[in-house]
Amino acid sequence: MTEIKLIDWLQRQPGTKGIGDDCFIYSDLVFTTDMMVEGVHFEQTDAPEAVGYKTLARGLSDIAAMGATPRFCLLSLAVPAWANDAWVKRFYKGLLKLGVPLTGGDLSHASQLVCDIMVCGQVAQGKALRRDGAMPGDHIYVSGELGANARDHFKRPPEPRLALGRKLIGKATACMDLSDGLSLDLHRLCIASGVAADLEAIPVAKGATLDQALHGGEDYELLFTSKTPLRLAGIKRIGTIRKGKSGAIRLDGKPLKPAGYDHFR
Amino acid sequence: MTEIKLIDWLQRQPGTKGIGDDCFIYSDLVFTTDMMVEGVHFEQTDAPEAVGYKTLARGLSDIAAMGATPRFCLLSLAVPAWANDAWVKRFYKGLLKLGVPLTGGDLSHASQLVCDIMVCGQVAQGKALRRDGAMPGDHIYVSGELGANARDHFKRPPEPRLALGRKLIGKATACMDLSDGLSLDLHRLCIASGVAADLEAIPVAKGATLDQALHGGEDYELLFTSKTPLRLAGIKRIGTIRKGKSGAIRLDGKPLKPAGYDHFR
Repeated sequence: MTEIKLIDWLQRQPGTKGIGDDCFIYSDLVFTTDMMVEGVHFEQTDAPEAVGYKTLARGLSDIAAMGATPRFCLLSLAVPAWANDAWVKRFYKGLLKLGVPLTGGDLSHASQLVCDIMVCGQVAQGKALRRDGAMPGDHIYVSGELGANARDHFKRPPEPRLALGRKLIGKATACMDLSDGLSLDLHRLCIASGVAADLEAIPVAKGATLDQALHGGEDYELLFTSKTPLRLAGIKRIGTIRKGKSGAIRLDGKPLKPAGYDHFR
Repeated sequence: MTEIKLIDWLQRQPGTKGIGDDCFIYSDLVFTTDMMVEGVHFEQTDAPEAVGYKTLARGLSDIAAMGATPRFCLLSLAVPAWANDAWVKRFYKGLLKLGVPLTGGDLSHASQLVCDIMVCGQVAQGKALRRDGAMPGDHIYVSGELGANARDHFKRPPEPRLALGRKLIGKATACMDLSDGLSLDLHRLCIASGVAADLEAIPVAKGATLDQALHGGEDYELLFTSKTPLRLAGIKRIGTIRKGKSGAIRLDGKPLKPAGYDHFR
């Protein structure tokens, strides 16, 4: 079972609702959780401040994808024997650098370090950006070059695109953040919107490969669509939404299989 | 460093606020996260439905402790190789049995199974029950007998006291849920309120020891205080709040050290 299949199964269970977007929308608030696991998202040898920073920054990238402003966060942390008091304190200090109030959470122990951040953001009611509004003919954009983090072995701190997300309110027809790679994340956006996509130009970061830009993951840029051409600093037009099989993507006219990161593959 | 010391350190960091209660209060909403780790809170051999149920029920116990009504939850899940598709689906089904909408979350993989639930509840603004309102002379109550879960090797499904929590609004001066054992949790409530306590009568569950009732943990009953005597079905009066060193507890006049479960000890 892949992540996409499990999420599809969950969406069909009685008692679930709103699953599948970057955040859950409740009145004028949005909510996301993001889990990081030692050996998967970071290593024991990483600076603890960088791990704490990345934990929250990943959650903020989801808040940015909704066009929302972060209000507070809660952090659950399971600490293994190798992480001493100093490590834990430096982790929290890295997290707090992002300026979002930390207001609660939970503590436990485990053999691997695991942390899970919950972030609450706020956005005018009914205005949050979603994944499911892309229409045939829409332009597809990303907020910057892709593949840089894969090139750098995933050591670049994410820069959540909060200011851009807010600017896209009322302009973007769909939006999500790029965490698992363009090919997989665009596939997800297209499935949510019931459309297909043609990729025409991939903005590959200097020193990265096309493969890293398409499938590398952890770019933490915004992927969004718009009915009319957008002129905003730094954004790159990469293709066009079209009618077709939900989630089907072509690059230069040839089918492109989603090959980004799937935790269950 | 103990959990209490780490939380005390966190409360003093710039950029944190509201840490230390069962939930964070934001307008008329309350938020909690609760993490469960394989080998700590459950075993591979436990029924997956029971693990899913316990995950959410523990979070709901925190919602009950605020006098709130649950509105929705998000679940982050890290799945190890031993948990197959059927296990994961049965886990979610157990969680969904509690009738709280599951509206999002995150998926990852790990060597141990780790799940973290975030629950949002609602309560009239300014009315949420807190830990910090106990005053000298207040009566101390618990919502039922203690030690039964320790006696049963922590295999009893928690029964979140949501209806009782709502009834305590406007009546209880302080309230929290009993997750780590009466001695440690009452110590925490007394520290939050700046008071001491005299325990006079411990309602020990049939077949449990006094030690299990005092320190066993995972009772998931409510611990609360009231200025006037309360008459509510099932509740037990266990002692009196008094002036004294913050957090100091006596049982039958003798000092009682907090000895419940600390993940960092």
